[in-house]
Amino acid sequence: MKNKQFSQEEQSVIEQVIQLRRDIRGNHFTDQSVSEKVIEQILSAAVSAPSVGYSQPWEFVVIRDRQIKSNIADIFAIENEKAKHQFDQKESIYGQLKLEGICEAPVNIAVFYKPDTLPVLGQTSMSSMGEYSVVCAVQNMWLMARALNVGVGWVSILDPERVKAELAVPKANQLVAYLCVGYVDEFGTKPELEILKWADRKEQHSLVHYDRYSGLG
Amino acid sequence: MKNKQFSQEEQSVIEQVIQLRRDIRGNHFTDQSVSEKVIEQILSAAVSAPSVGYSQPWEFVVIRDRQIKSNIADIFAIENEKAKHQFDQKESIYGQLKLEGICEAPVNIAVFYKPDTLPVLGQTSMSSMGEYSVVCAVQNMWLMARALNVGVGWVSILDPERVKAELAVPKANQLVAYLCVGYVDEFGTKPELEILKWADRKEQHSLVHYDRYSGLG
Repeated sequence: MKNKQFSQEEQSVIEQVIQLRRDIRGNHFTDQSVSEKVIEQILSAAVSAPSVGYSQPWEFVVIRDRQIKSNIADIFAIENEKAKHQFDQKESIYGQLKLEGICEAPVNIAVFYKPDTLPVLGQTSMSSMGEYSVVCAVQNMWLMARALNVGVGWVSILDPERVKAELAVPKANQLVAYLCVGYVDEFGTKPELEILKWADRKEQHSLVHYDRYSGLG
Repeated sequence: MKNKQFSQEEQSVIEQVIQLRRDIRGNHFTDQSVSEKVIEQILSAAVSAPSVGYSQPWEFVVIRDRQIKSNIADIFAIENEKAKHQFDQKESIYGQLKLEGICEAPVNIAVFYKPDTLPVLGQTSMSSMGEYSVVCAVQNMWLMARALNVGVGWVSILDPERVKAELAVPKANQLVAYLCVGYVDEFGTKPELEILKWADRKEQHSLVHYDRYSGLG
């Protein structure tokens, strides 16, 4: 099994999951409940992510409580109000965007980085590697969820310290991701911000250099 | 297509790719060459990752030049020598570990975060979201590569500024990941650091809390 060679057909499944994954907000979650089994499968993908020095520095809070979700949504509202003034002429468009699905999603999962108290192999020159490992876990969750036909939305317009206080998180832990998880009415043909022309897709070739940077930059 | 429902069989493919992905070092890369087409498929997975505010803040340098790889390996050697003294009684074990495959892998890919000069939607409260988006791209690459039966190793024992100087990277960009990419003799049954008993696997249930933190921490 360890040396399993994936077939072209299997490669195409991965490719499709990657291409059809979307960031889901409250306008697309349905109230269909998400079973414990599905949440376990998503978390199992998370803990199978690579981690620096095999530190596995991740911890998760699975939230179904309506009051807690509502309190987190309040934290979002405060931060989002502050944020929108930063977008000048785009401010009115910004105000119309639905940027989270905290209360609409039946499940929220907060993902934390728990720093080690001792040096970690591989993290001695690049200290962010611990957090980066947790992000790898999040991306595994997102893809596994899409394969399970479950949508995920990452909410980042949050004050991490307020979220930690709400969830009684130990001081040393850092919030990496706050995910809204649930079934959806549709996944969307393209990223919503591309459809709404907030930003254009960048051409792949414009992002790639060979051997050294050249031209660009 | 947008609303494609993946079958159980397809879900199991994703699960296998996630479970069978490994971090590959120089003791497992073969010298079989990696085609441009395969590199393009891996990069295509990268640019299909989620990104905060659809900022797509990633840039890539694909390195095949032996001299450049050798110079990067020198940067690793300096950092690794500094690192090993931090592991006290484990120092002698550390010294025996093969922690990179820079020269052995036919292709290296350096992945950078290019910060935006304007505020980015979703990045106003959590400034690391740009880097985190790039890490999502890296994890997509890693999984796509595994599905293509290609190994990836993430080398983090590097001085990012020296790497940037070697690759003529614009000042504003940040090194997120330095990846070694190539075919392998084997993928390993478990993470190498687990096999070598450098660290134990953590139990999934010990990492998960419900609604709020409790007990642990």
